[in-house]
Amino acid sequence: MDTIQSDSYPIFFDDSLSELITFIKQGKYSRTFVLTDENTSAQCLPVLEPLLAELDNYDLIEINAGEESKNIDFCVGVWKMLIDFGADRKALMVNLGGGVVTDLGGFVASTYKRGIDFVQVPTTLLSQVDASVGGKTGVDMDGIKNIIGTFTQPKAVFMSAAFLKTLPERQILSGLAEMLKHGLICDADYWKELKNSDLSLPSVELIYRSVEIKNAVVIEDPQEKSIRKALNFGHTIGHAVETNSILNDERPLTHGEAIAIGMICEAWLSHKKAGLPKEHLHEISTVLNGLYPKYPVPDTCHNVLYELMQKDKKNTEKQINCTLLTKIGCFSIDNICTEDELCASLRYYAAL
Amino acid sequence: MDTIQSDSYPIFFDDSLSELITFIKQGKYSRTFVLTDENTSAQCLPVLEPLLAELDNYDLIEINAGEESKNIDFCVGVWKMLIDFGADRKALMVNLGGGVVTDLGGFVASTYKRGIDFVQVPTTLLSQVDASVGGKTGVDMDGIKNIIGTFTQPKAVFMSAAFLKTLPERQILSGLAEMLKHGLICDADYWKELKNSDLSLPSVELIYRSVEIKNAVVIEDPQEKSIRKALNFGHTIGHAVETNSILNDERPLTHGEAIAIGMICEAWLSHKKAGLPKEHLHEISTVLNGLYPKYPVPDTCHNVLYELMQKDKKNTEKQINCTLLTKIGCFSIDNICTEDELCASLRYYAAL
Ligand SMILES: NC(=O)c1ccc[n+]([C@@H]2O[C@H](COP(=O)([O-])OP(=O)(O)OC[C@H]3O[C@@H](n4cnc5c(N)ncnc54)[C@H](O)[C@@H]3O)[C@@H](O)[C@H]2O)c1
Ligand SMILES: NC(=O)c1ccc[n+]([C@@H]2O[C@H](COP(=O)([O-])OP(=O)(O)OC[C@H]3O[C@@H](n4cnc5c(N)ncnc54)[C@H](O)[C@@H]3O)[C@@H](O)[C@H]2O)c1
Ligand SMILES: [Zn+2]
Ligand SMILES: [Zn+2]
Repeated sequence: MDTIQSDSYPIFFDDSLSELITFIKQGKYSRTFVLTDENTSAQCLPVLEPLLAELDNYDLIEINAGEESKNIDFCVGVWKMLIDFGADRKALMVNLGGGVVTDLGGFVASTYKRGIDFVQVPTTLLSQVDASVGGKTGVDMDGIKNIIGTFTQPKAVFMSAAFLKTLPERQILSGLAEMLKHGLICDADYWKELKNSDLSLPSVELIYRSVEIKNAVVIEDPQEKSIRKALNFGHTIGHAVETNSILNDERPLTHGEAIAIGMICEAWLSHKKAGLPKEHLHEISTVLNGLYPKYPVPDTCHNVLYELMQKDKKNTEKQINCTLLTKIGCFSIDNICTEDELCASLRYYAAL
Repeated sequence: MDTIQSDSYPIFFDDSLSELITFIKQGKYSRTFVLTDENTSAQCLPVLEPLLAELDNYDLIEINAGEESKNIDFCVGVWKMLIDFGADRKALMVNLGGGVVTDLGGFVASTYKRGIDFVQVPTTLLSQVDASVGGKTGVDMDGIKNIIGTFTQPKAVFMSAAFLKTLPERQILSGLAEMLKHGLICDADYWKELKNSDLSLPSVELIYRSVEIKNAVVIEDPQEKSIRKALNFGHTIGHAVETNSILNDERPLTHGEAIAIGMICEAWLSHKKAGLPKEHLHEISTVLNGLYPKYPVPDTCHNVLYELMQKDKKNTEKQINCTLLTKIGCFSIDNICTEDELCASLRYYAAL
C-alpha cells in the first residue's frame, strides 16, 4: 500500500512503525517525547516499545484518557513536563493515541518554544481516518470543542492497523461515521462498498481510501476557506449534540455517534434545501439508524442545541451555515439554515 | 515618512491612528476587541477613543500591567472573554500596549479558533522598535520567558509617537537599548548618530531607522534559522539577568536595562572571541554604562545565571550560543561560549 503524500509530509501505511523509528533516527532529534493517555500506555505502548528500544533515549508523558482531558490545564501539565525535561527546539513529540492525544499533543508541540516537530501515531479508527490528517490541533474550553488551537502540520503520520485490535467496538463505530461521511460527500462507490462490508473491523484498504479522500480535500484547502467545509457535513448539528451530551449524560455519546445523528438531520436538510433525492435520504437514514443506537433529542433540548450551534466556530455573525448533499457523493457548502429548519431536522431524526 | 512593508503586512508611521480606523472599517470585521493593560487603558486609550468612536462597535479587554501578567492564566482570561462576547473567526483584535500586551494579545489571537486577525499598536518605545515587528508572539511559564508561543504575523502595525509622551523615562531607556543594538549589529553610522543624540525622547526618524533594520532582518529569516540570530546580541546573558531579576528583585530590571548589561558582557566576549577591536569594546561599555544604572552581578549568582542560559530556548543540547560582534556594525552568529567565558564576561561588567 503506497505512502500517501500530504501537503508537506508523508502518511505511512506499510510497515509504518519501523518507518517511525527510521524517521526518528534520521531526524537527529535532541530528545524524543512519547505522549500517551492511560489507555494507549496500556494497550498501544507495548506494541511500540520493542521498536522504541532501538533509540538511544525517549521519555514518556501521559495524560488522562477522554475528552475531559482535552483542555488547557493538561496542556500546561505537558508544557511543564517539557520544561522540566529541558526539551529544546530540536526535540520531537510522538503523539500515540486517539484524537484527544493527537489534537492536544499537536497543540502543545506547535506552541512549545514557538513550535517543535511532532508526528502523529493515531491509535483509534477515528484518529486514523480523520484527526491525524489535516493539521488541525487544539483543545476545548468552556464546553466549546477545539476553540483554542493552531493549524500546524505534523512532520509525518504513521498508520498501523495493529492498534485497532484492542479498540472497543463502540470506538470502531465512532470512526466509521467519518468514513461513511467521506463516501457521502465525495465518493458514491465508496459509500456503497462500505455499506456492504463487514464493518466490525474495517479493512486497511477501506481506511486507506478514507485517508485519501480527507487528504485530497485538506490539501486543496488547508485553511478551511472553501471546499474543506465539505468535511463539516453532519457536524453542525452533530457537534452541538455531542457537546450537549458531554455536558449532561453520564455516558456521553462518542464523536461518531453524534455525527451519525448530525448526518441524518443534515441529510433531511439536504433533501429540503439542496435537492438530495428522497431515495438517497432514505438510504442514508436507514444505514445510519441501523448502525448506531437511537439517542433521544426531545423538543425540550432544541433551544440548547441551537445556542451551541451559534457558538460553534464555523459560524460567522451568528448565522448557521451547513454543508449539505445534492446527491450521495456530492456536497454543497454554505447553506444558511434557520432555527426552524434545524429543529425540524431534529424532529425528523427523532421520529425515525 | 513612508510606510514600511514587512513580509505580508504594512507598518504605518504617518497618520497611523487614522490609518488604523480605515483598516478596521475596510476589513469588514464582525467585531473589534481592543486589548489594553491598566496603564494603556488610562494613558493610551484616551488618545485612540475619539477615533474609535467612528466605529459601529468595539469592546475592551484589559489585563493587569507588567511582565507578571504575561502568562497562560491571563491568556485563559482573554480567551474566555472572547468566548463570552461570542467572538467568531472574523473578529479582530487590536493590541494597544507595550510588549506584554502585543506578545500576549498576538498569542491569544493566533490560537483563538485557530487564528483570528490581529493588529499591533505598540505604545512603548521597546514595543515599537522591537516587539511589534517580526511575528513572534508568546507568554512566559515557570519563569522562562516566551516559552509558549507562535510565529504569527499581525495584519498591520500602527506606530504613533503620540503614546511615548506619557511613557516613564525608564521605559524610554528600555527601548533605547534595542535601538542601540540595531546600530551595533548592522549600522555603525546609526550607532554614531544615536550616541550623539538627545536620547530622552528619541525622534521618529530614529525610531523609523530601527524598525527598518529589525524588519529587514526578520524578513530575510522569519523562522530564526540564521541571520535573525543577529538580534540576539546581548540577549543570551541579558535574558538570564532579566529573568533572575524578575524572580528576586523587588523592583526588577526592565528588559532594556538587562539587555544593556548583556551587550556589555557580550561585547567583551566579542573582543575575546570574535575580533571586536579593543577601542570598540571600550566605546560600547562607556556609552552603555553611562546611560544605564549599575546593577550588581556578584560571583555568587553566576551559577543561577548559567542555569538560566541553559534553559533558554535558543540553546540546543545545552550548549550556549552567542551572537557576537566582529566590529561595531557587524555581527557573527553561533559562537559557542563556555561557562568560564560567560562568567568572565560578567566579571568584566561588574568591574567597570
Ligand atoms: N484534528 C482533527 O481534524 C480532528 C478530527 C476529528 C476528531 N478530532 C478530535 O478527536 C477526538 C476524538 O478522537 P477519538 O475518538 O480517537 O478519542 P480518544 O482519543 O478519546 O480515544 C477514544 C478512547 O479510546 C482509547 N484508545 C485509544 N486508542 C486505543 C487502542 N488502540 N486500544 C484501546 N483503547 C484505545 C482512548 O484512551 C479513549 O479512551 C475529539 O476530541 C475530536 O475533537 C479531531
Ligand atoms: N515579540 C517580540 O519580538 C519581542 C521583542 C522584544 C520584547 N518583547 C517582549 O516585550 C515585553 C517588554 O515590552 P515593554 O517594555 O513594552 O513592556 P510592557 O508592555 O510591560 O510595558 C512597560 C510598562 O509601560 C506601561 N505603558 C505602556 N505604554 C505606555 C504609555 N504609552 N504610557 C505610559 N505607560 C505605558 C505598561 O503598562 C507597563 O507598565 C517583554 O515581555 C518582552 O519579552 C517581545
Ligand atoms: Zn468529525
Ligand atoms: Zn530584546
